[in-house]
Amino acid sequence: MALFVMKFGGSSVGDTERMQRVARRVVEKQDEGNQVVVVVSAMGDTTDDLIDQAKLLSKEPPLREMDMLMTTGEQISISLLSIAIHAEGRKAVSFTGWQAGFRTDKEHSRARITDIQPQRVQAALDEGNIVVVAGFQGISEDGEITTFGRGGSDTTAVALAAAISADYCEIYTDVDGIYSTDPRIVKNARKLQEISYDEMLELANLGAAVLHPRAVEYAKHNQVRLVVRSSFNHNEGTVVKEEAKMEQGVVVSGIAYDKNVARISILGVSHIPGVLAQVFGTLAEAKIDVDIIVQSGVQDGKADFSFTVALTDRERALQVINGIRSSLPFDEVTSEDGLVKVSIVGAGMVSHPGVAAKMFDVISKEDVNIKMVSTSEIKVSCVIEGTKLNEVVKALHTAYGLDTESQVFVGGPQDRR
Amino acid sequence: MALFVMKFGGSSVGDTERMQRVARRVVEKQDEGNQVVVVVSAMGDTTDDLIDQAKLLSKEPPLREMDMLMTTGEQISISLLSIAIHAEGRKAVSFTGWQAGFRTDKEHSRARITDIQPQRVQAALDEGNIVVVAGFQGISEDGEITTFGRGGSDTTAVALAAAISADYCEIYTDVDGIYSTDPRIVKNARKLQEISYDEMLELANLGAAVLHPRAVEYAKHNQVRLVVRSSFNHNEGTVVKEEAKMEQGVVVSGIAYDKNVARISILGVSHIPGVLAQVFGTLAEAKIDVDIIVQSGVQDGKADFSFTVALTDRERALQVINGIRSSLPFDEVTSEDGLVKVSIVGAGMVSHPGVAAKMFDVISKEDVNIKMVSTSEIKVSCVIEGTKLNEVVKALHTAYGLDTESQVFVGGPQDRR
Repeated sequence: MALFVMKFGGSSVGDTERMQRVARRVVEKQDEGNQVVVVVSAMGDTTDDLIDQAKLLSKEPPLREMDMLMTTGEQISISLLSIAIHAEGRKAVSFTGWQAGFRTDKEHSRARITDIQPQRVQAALDEGNIVVVAGFQGISEDGEITTFGRGGSDTTAVALAAAISADYCEIYTDVDGIYSTDPRIVKNARKLQEISYDEMLELANLGAAVLHPRAVEYAKHNQVRLVVRSSFNHNEGTVVKEEAKMEQGVVVSGIAYDKNVARISILGVSHIPGVLAQVFGTLAEAKIDVDIIVQSGVQDGKADFSFTVALTDRERALQVINGIRSSLPFDEVTSEDGLVKVSIVGAGMVSHPGVAAKMFDVISKEDVNIKMVSTSEIKVSCVIEGTKLNEVVKALHTAYGLDTESQVFVGGPQDRR
Repeated sequence: MALFVMKFGGSSVGDTERMQRVARRVVEKQDEGNQVVVVVSAMGDTTDDLIDQAKLLSKEPPLREMDMLMTTGEQISISLLSIAIHAEGRKAVSFTGWQAGFRTDKEHSRARITDIQPQRVQAALDEGNIVVVAGFQGISEDGEITTFGRGGSDTTAVALAAAISADYCEIYTDVDGIYSTDPRIVKNARKLQEISYDEMLELANLGAAVLHPRAVEYAKHNQVRLVVRSSFNHNEGTVVKEEAKMEQGVVVSGIAYDKNVARISILGVSHIPGVLAQVFGTLAEAKIDVDIIVQSGVQDGKADFSFTVALTDRERALQVINGIRSSLPFDEVTSEDGLVKVSIVGAGMVSHPGVAAKMFDVISKEDVNIKMVSTSEIKVSCVIEGTKLNEVVKALHTAYGLDTESQVFVGGPQDRR
């Protein structure tokens, strides 16, 4: 007998029929001799509908009240799913976040879990129940209802799996698992059998929206064995764990891209260190995340530097910088959109030099300029113009031997990546 | 400075505009120098919609999960109303039933309040907040979410008013107050300025659905001063309290009717006491309420008796009785619908004989047969055929001097009622 946490997102429980399908799926798992905890998100568009209602009443609704409002979405899901499981002739019991023992700090809309006291979950399991837990929510020390922010249901599932020492935490989604790249762009993208936490983190952060980065971090920290699989079929899915088995000769596991990118350039800067500190300090205060930062050559004692922010943050970032302009010694600030960040990710890179050079080579053969570069132990990212994104991703996918129909060993020249 | 509990039902907060109107109304009350707690129900049809969703999944959803589901309705209302009050520039904080301290027994779907610990409500008031509390819900000793059943939001308001020693508990509804009878039938029905708890209880039980009987009982027991008034205008409403001021010569305060009535007759019964015990014992076990019971004359050592149940319970009641027939010495069971129960209610009756005789006289002058009669200290009820209901109510309203345009003293002959 194994203990499973199964997490289903909003689209998996979007209507009555899907809810019934999830109920049967969960019952099946119990029939195989397992104990089962299910974590669910709000149904379909419920969360967005609730936000819309609040926005009709106020442009800036208080976060505490938004948490009070939004948590009803998951509460509706858990009760309906429990009812559907009962209709299948099984015992089920639903718990809100606070009932399941999720203690958090006081940061409404983006609370962090401080502690989990899963006694009620454990007791209900021991009594033979399928336990259905509301994702995304907890309770603060003061008894206030809090939420974890978007993607928080993944975190609920992983954290609960850790707290009750589950054998597996299965994340059910609308794709079969983690792919080597977006199958909408590359038709013969391969489904990965296994992937390491670190690789998954890079992929998650780079726009492959299957798993929330925070959930992956939590899984890594607690060594929770994650499985990403489809709620619409019984295919095997991808296992995310500490040491993923590497396929022969595959140094790059996946290729990710992110279209939500804008480049901001500050030109003619005299005192680089002071300016950098002030610009990024002010952006951080405004809660604008900066990704890649590049400084270009010095001329006449002045230098230029560029950085990327989310495209959706561009206007705010420009406002922030123009707001501090009077006190800053720079000539001009410009911004650029229509960009995309393409990344190759793979734990095998560390021991295989030349991986980055091959990337630059492939991109340049597509006649595309590389505007910025950033690297880590297990990834290389390039910011390029977005117009030829599909061609670049396809070419990289082939070059690193990821196409399912022709799995070729790919070495590469002995340069530094 | 006075402390008000203001309760708004589902239709008063049915959409964004109405929610905003309630917010302004509440702010107005605070502006007059008062502390304000608001109790709200679920918006419009939310509760029914949730029930419909559950019924799609199961014919008999578990009550625990139904409570989990239904309580989201009020939770949505309290958060949206708080957001609307914030938009008016005031501090507001919402509490679910368990946050507001409503402890109940474990009876899901019809829990009774065992204790209220209103510390959080009190603290939030002391900090200058308008406090918004979810009606109809609480928490059991085991941390299970419970509901009070329909009409439970009135009970929440009254019980909370008692717990925090509020000066007034105002029940806002879609009518101006308590009327001497249904204004849809009698155009010049009079709005009552005051009414006693006991009279209100009779009216509430008799189908005047403005206030839930349990809430009135709770108010009487805790001497909470209730005000029933409209959420759509600023008219004065009706005060419900222990000793209502009696208007000169008015012995009957109101006339109520109930169309949800069926008569069941058991004919040819040999051993009346044993049969009565068995029939009503079995009906009580099946949770079918019996109202009026009448035994008619004995013939050949056998008697007939009749009783009324809710029309909606008729089929079940017949099944129950036929189910025990084999062990019971009676000849036949019949039932009759198309009936209505008309009642006159007034604390002044006790000291004014002849009130009942006048009622029988008025009804017979309308050429309507009286099928059953039942009396208490402050009411007389007659079950009649429903076809002439409107004429009977109008005639009674006039006869007891309740028409607003011609308030005449009505004495009556010196018979016993």
